[in-house]
Amino acid sequence: MKWNKRQRQPKLREKIEEDPFITDDALASFFDVSVQTIRLDRLEMNIPEVRERIKDVAQKQYDPVKALPEEEVIGDIVDLELDSYAISILDIKEEHAFSRNHIARGHHLFAQANSLAVAVIDDELALTTEAEVSFKRQVYAGDRVIAKARVNKAAQNRTHVNVESFVGQKLVFSGSFHMFREDQVEKGELS
Amino acid sequence: MKWNKRQRQPKLREKIEEDPFITDDALASFFDVSVQTIRLDRLEMNIPEVRERIKDVAQKQYDPVKALPEEEVIGDIVDLELDSYAISILDIKEEHAFSRNHIARGHHLFAQANSLAVAVIDDELALTTEAEVSFKRQVYAGDRVIAKARVNKAAQNRTHVNVESFVGQKLVFSGSFHMFREDQVEKGELS
Repeated sequence: MKWNKRQRQPKLREKIEEDPFITDDALASFFDVSVQTIRLDRLEMNIPEVRERIKDVAQKQYDPVKALPEEEVIGDIVDLELDSYAISILDIKEEHAFSRNHIARGHHLFAQANSLAVAVIDDELALTTEAEVSFKRQVYAGDRVIAKARVNKAAQNRTHVNVESFVGQKLVFSGSFHMFREDQVEKGELS
Repeated sequence: MKWNKRQRQPKLREKIEEDPFITDDALASFFDVSVQTIRLDRLEMNIPEVRERIKDVAQKQYDPVKALPEEEVIGDIVDLELDSYAISILDIKEEHAFSRNHIARGHHLFAQANSLAVAVIDDELALTTEAEVSFKRQVYAGDRVIAKARVNKAAQNRTHVNVESFVGQKLVFSGSFHMFREDQVEKGELS
């Protein structure tokens, strides 16, 4: 069933509030209307486009990254609470993709997720010791990848960070990163 | 027990034949002599230095990479037999390392290993679906990382590639990469 404009617009606002990173394309396919219709809805309701919404989120305060200078994070951090969660965005360009088929190269998705896992740790030094990663769907040049990291404190002072990366609503990558913090390194566990 | 020169030199030649990538430093510590002694031994025996030996290996014929243009491999391939094994070398520079502590960033080791795993596949299209990786020791700017990939054909037409990366004789990284080849992709298993 298609909603009419009066029914659709409040739902649209709700949907965008739930997920500020949702694109017009994704909204159009969710509401089964054209992208143009979504744009008109946004204009009428004065909701900025997704790039502007992302910038808004990015301008909000978030915890400062400790384990590395922020410019060493691959992708742009848009939210972060130390030892809890973090979100970053990476726009896949041609240089991130295989020249033959424009599929994003796995190590860039790995780099975004791994550097986010390092960034979220509340310690001056955080090192990755192990990772299990899974490439769920192909990502292409032009796609915007949103990585979400969640921290799970593990036994023996170790920390696991789980990262899930999405293009639109689709899971494209997931990874579990096992992190060492400075205090273990000083004890020489990782030498 | 330290060998004298007459005892040491044949052993040295043997050691270098076994592992052409071994450095003078590693040889010095193996024979418990100074690096200078190793250099003199090499000069007397007319054995080129490690950089030259690596170039020699690199100039030998190896199978052409199929799954991607060779310049898209991270590191320099020095040997490759399709669907069997491959070796690449990556010199870690400051830009590959954390600015704070000069430790190589994990995603560069991952990128070297993963692109080697793609390169070794005898197919026009090879994609990584999963990987388990382990960062065994810290690698620093200035280190030369030698990655060795071995192919294990797995069940159901899938292929696993195991990669071990070394600095000198020390294992610094290991990874198991699960690869899809074109025929599975065409069947839509990865969509």
